Amino acid sequence: MYVIEQQRPTPAPIPGVAHATWAGADEGLSQLSVWRQTLAPGAATPPHRHDCDEVVLCQSGEGELHVDGEVHRFAAGTTLVLPQGLPHQIFATGTAPLEILGVFGGSPVGTFLPDGESITLPWRT
Amino acid sequence: MYVIEQQRPTPAPIPGVAHATWAGADEGLSQLSVWRQTLAPGAATPPHRHDCDEVVLCQSGEGELHVDGEVHRFAAGTTLVLPQGLPHQIFATGTAPLEILGVFGGSPVGTFLPDGESITLPWRT
Repeated sequence: MYVIEQQRPTPAPIPGVAHATWAGADEGLSQLSVWRQTLAPGAATPPHRHDCDEVVLCQSGEGELHVDGEVHRFAAGTTLVLPQGLPHQIFATGTAPLEILGVFGGSPVGTFLPDGESITLPWRT
Repeated sequence: MYVIEQQRPTPAPIPGVAHATWAGADEGLSQLSVWRQTLAPGAATPPHRHDCDEVVLCQSGEGELHVDGEVHRFAAGTTLVLPQGLPHQIFATGTAPLEILGVFGGSPVGTFLPDGESITLPWRT
């Protein structure tokens, strides 16, 4: 299956987060995962890190990236660059949903709390 | 630099192709490259393959993916999944430009003609 219809994100067990996996191991990939997520206003990811590089493309809305003890504001038309192992947290800070595309340099995507505890993600990665 | 403004694609030395590298080794990544490209109506990539997984997200326009001796039509709202090493070629077949995002499971991105000859890409990967 080389051409796949993109699915709309559906509610995930993380409050205010909707998710769709657009590509990953199930599509025959081992080096890439692509996720589409919507964060409702006020929603946030947990603080976490991955065992692979991550790039987040902001498609609409506004957010904050908390990383390295700093707060970086971002909005539509920006790219977040998160090298492998970097702890980070993303907040939807605007009045509209934050629409993002997350791309990862591996599949499955290992995800950990800052203290190293592995997180079992509620979607395929 | 964790937050980067997305640049518009600018004309590349491939006829009808405009390109912008949004993330890669220069941004501290080793497992991911993200490219934004515009193919003018009638433009095409050369037939080629990569040494890493690739996913193409079609944002607008219409195209054809030639792969495995088959022709797959695609349009906005579809994802192309191209596992590592798979020869492929993309054509812009609509009357409007084909706007795509290419994500790759490596940086730099090794690119080869179907016969194995290495292609030196005219942009940073």
